[in-house]
Amino acid sequence: MANKIPTRIYLTEEEMPKFWYNLRADMKNKPEPMLHPGTLQPVTAADLGPVFCKGVIDQELDETTRLIPIPEDIQDFYRAYRPSALIRAYYLEKMLGTPAEIYYKFEGSNTSGSHKLNSAGPQAYYAKKEGLTSLTTETGAGQWGTAMAMSCAFYGLDLTVYMVKVSSEQKPYRKALIEAYGANLIPSPSNTTESGKKILESDPNTGGSLGCAISEAIETAVKTDKCRYVLGSVLNHVLLHQSIIGLETKTALDKFGIKPDIIIGCAGGGSNMGGLMAPFMGEKLTGKSNARFIAVEPASCPSFTRGRFAYDFGDTAKTTPLIKMMTIGNGYIPSANHAGGLRYHGMNSTLSKLFQDGLLEARAEVQTNVFDAAIKFMKTEGILPAPESSHAIKVAIDEALECKKTGEKKVILFGLSGTGFFDMTAYQSYNNKTMNDQTPSDADLQRGFASIPGIPQNS
Amino acid sequence: MANKIPTRIYLTEEEMPKFWYNLRADMKNKPEPMLHPGTLQPVTAADLGPVFCKGVIDQELDETTRLIPIPEDIQDFYRAYRPSALIRAYYLEKMLGTPAEIYYKFEGSNTSGSHKLNSAGPQAYYAKKEGLTSLTTETGAGQWGTAMAMSCAFYGLDLTVYMVKVSSEQKPYRKALIEAYGANLIPSPSNTTESGKKILESDPNTGGSLGCAISEAIETAVKTDKCRYVLGSVLNHVLLHQSIIGLETKTALDKFGIKPDIIIGCAGGGSNMGGLMAPFMGEKLTGKSNARFIAVEPASCPSFTRGRFAYDFGDTAKTTPLIKMMTIGNGYIPSANHAGGLRYHGMNSTLSKLFQDGLLEARAEVQTNVFDAAIKFMKTEGILPAPESSHAIKVAIDEALECKKTGEKKVILFGLSGTGFFDMTAYQSYNNKTMNDQTPSDADLQRGFASIPGIPQNS
Repeated sequence: MANKIPTRIYLTEEEMPKFWYNLRADMKNKPEPMLHPGTLQPVTAADLGPVFCKGVIDQELDETTRLIPIPEDIQDFYRAYRPSALIRAYYLEKMLGTPAEIYYKFEGSNTSGSHKLNSAGPQAYYAKKEGLTSLTTETGAGQWGTAMAMSCAFYGLDLTVYMVKVSSEQKPYRKALIEAYGANLIPSPSNTTESGKKILESDPNTGGSLGCAISEAIETAVKTDKCRYVLGSVLNHVLLHQSIIGLETKTALDKFGIKPDIIIGCAGGGSNMGGLMAPFMGEKLTGKSNARFIAVEPASCPSFTRGRFAYDFGDTAKTTPLIKMMTIGNGYIPSANHAGGLRYHGMNSTLSKLFQDGLLEARAEVQTNVFDAAIKFMKTEGILPAPESSHAIKVAIDEALECKKTGEKKVILFGLSGTGFFDMTAYQSYNNKTMNDQTPSDADLQRGFASIPGIPQNS
Repeated sequence: MANKIPTRIYLTEEEMPKFWYNLRADMKNKPEPMLHPGTLQPVTAADLGPVFCKGVIDQELDETTRLIPIPEDIQDFYRAYRPSALIRAYYLEKMLGTPAEIYYKFEGSNTSGSHKLNSAGPQAYYAKKEGLTSLTTETGAGQWGTAMAMSCAFYGLDLTVYMVKVSSEQKPYRKALIEAYGANLIPSPSNTTESGKKILESDPNTGGSLGCAISEAIETAVKTDKCRYVLGSVLNHVLLHQSIIGLETKTALDKFGIKPDIIIGCAGGGSNMGGLMAPFMGEKLTGKSNARFIAVEPASCPSFTRGRFAYDFGDTAKTTPLIKMMTIGNGYIPSANHAGGLRYHGMNSTLSKLFQDGLLEARAEVQTNVFDAAIKFMKTEGILPAPESSHAIKVAIDEALECKKTGEKKVILFGLSGTGFFDMTAYQSYNNKTMNDQTPSDADLQRGFASIPGIPQNS
């Protein structure tokens, strides 16, 4: 095969992005502001100050600066594991017999196993720069906890990770990895916080939840000197950091004069899809592109495809600011699903707004179909994909097969956000045909919607 | 940090090697030939024909052709996951405060997790080309089994993997990964072979051994139509395929005019060290370089540092040809060690010869020191190293600290042969300080030596 376009495209260090791209700056209809849950007024930097680092608060609230310089130190951090490869899926194309060109950006080759490191590094950097000595966070599936542990080891910060108790028991290897990086891992709920104690009192045998782990992490951050809390998804500063994915991808494609027709990503809280699509969506918003954008979510947790556009809390304990987003309700509990990173009730406010405005499509997929696609992919392209990322593979294959029917040579780009090395129980259940494809009934969703606060939903 | 030399150096597809390099062609003193255990005469292609593919037999027996073309199809296969990154360890250097320049070639970013894929692909390719329909092999730690499962999925061949029973039980995720690639995994010993049945009769509760798994795999290959056996280390055709590691590294360093002073690799059967060092040792053999070469082995399995140079069997069942090598005896059973890929009693014949001739040094390291080095490395460079590869890290750090003492700006190159994603039990035992640093007593070694056949050891 004489490839005019290489199988793997890497940028040189000179070509790597020097700026993050703030998509909101190019949106005519901005996402609704976060509201303080007490006053129902837009949150201010002062409201967020006790919880988050100043650096990220500024970025969170900035809707107008298009390009935000990546500090030299963070460029150094990125060079430790970036650029990630943009890969032409020659082998998958051949197996499908499609005329489409398929490309994927692979974010899973760093030790954290996913794109999460792209925001963990900057968040640790700002904490260090602001004179903090420690951070707290929560982790469910474990990618974010690992990414933060790596980043804190790199910048010399202490880290406490509240890991959902059932996850820490089911994923002892994730726990071992986070601890090997020197982080203090506490199964949540714990008796190290008031919120943890309260939950343990009411249910001593609980396996915990992400919402509870968030509450414990925030409580500890607020109570501890020179300490703040960090979050790995949902918020707009996280999407800003993740724009490195799309910026690298666009530079690589531009070198070969390639313009994607369809951009596909999995979406849980939205950080991966938001990062990949950012510069391409920017072109669409400014009339330079007609590309389609498809966010793929699990059918068991369908915030885009079956949710409501409403102000809701970011956590089940109802302690966060209110976010206007696509949501199935902070009280919704999705059925067991191997794509732990996609089991979130809401969706980033920018993505939600674009979806409302018809600029972003969404699809929901059941697990077994997602794993069928993952197996096809790994047998041809070699890489073991994360269950989360495999949602994007599923839709990329569907679109490529549609091209086969119509004969169109579309250019399909998707985000391969992570590897499945710590998800082998999922592959075991696929191998053993014991996978659960349960989707919520309308009644299940109604129960979720009931947890959305009844405040004026003006739009 | 304004890097003149990039942190990560990738070759373009045009720069990737088109030939493997056969180090033996440049050796004045060739390795001793393999002997048929019955006749004690050098083995012929006909002797090996029932067991191995013809393509690899030709390569195994070829001591004179310097450059062997990499078939186009295998170049395609390599493009699916290569080039691998050559990384300048800026962050590790800074942490150590050494004037040395440290580079490492990272072979663990493919899904098999190690360099093994570099030979698995070619071996599957030759099988397909020769009209075979299936292959058999054994696996202990699992990297080789995964690499072969990936390669057979890619080339459309059936694969049976005999996995050491205790490993298949201790590493259910490795098993799941191999099965997800479509391979038939059989815990060994099994009742699918005569050799397996015999072992089960004498010891129904045995956990199996690599030697037993090899015997079962060879028996099945020989008995099955259009089927052969493949091996992932020790033999010279494997080293030939692995020369891709060193060739890529040399091309990358040559672009920047860098000549390594010290080349370091871990060594179990020798395929990783042999592949990395090949072109650099070639320069030394032809008077163009004065570099030092250091093979690092576990103190628990010291075939270089405490072994004998003698003809010995490659397996504990004494079914293979006799190989002249550094060995502690085919009957030697190393103590429990987390570097499963280094727990082999012998060493590739080419490396053994170079060691005898004083061209290659060797060091043995205990586990805890190796993991101390691994943790230093992962906290600065980010990558989670395999226990095997961490042996090379240990010695690279030692050499860099020696440079700090002497003020010398040496260039140190080491092979990072794999990741530790499936070795988290090892990291758990390090975290918990329950690691075992037992080294064999002289009496233990004498028992091993007693298993070396008493045939004329003429040299």
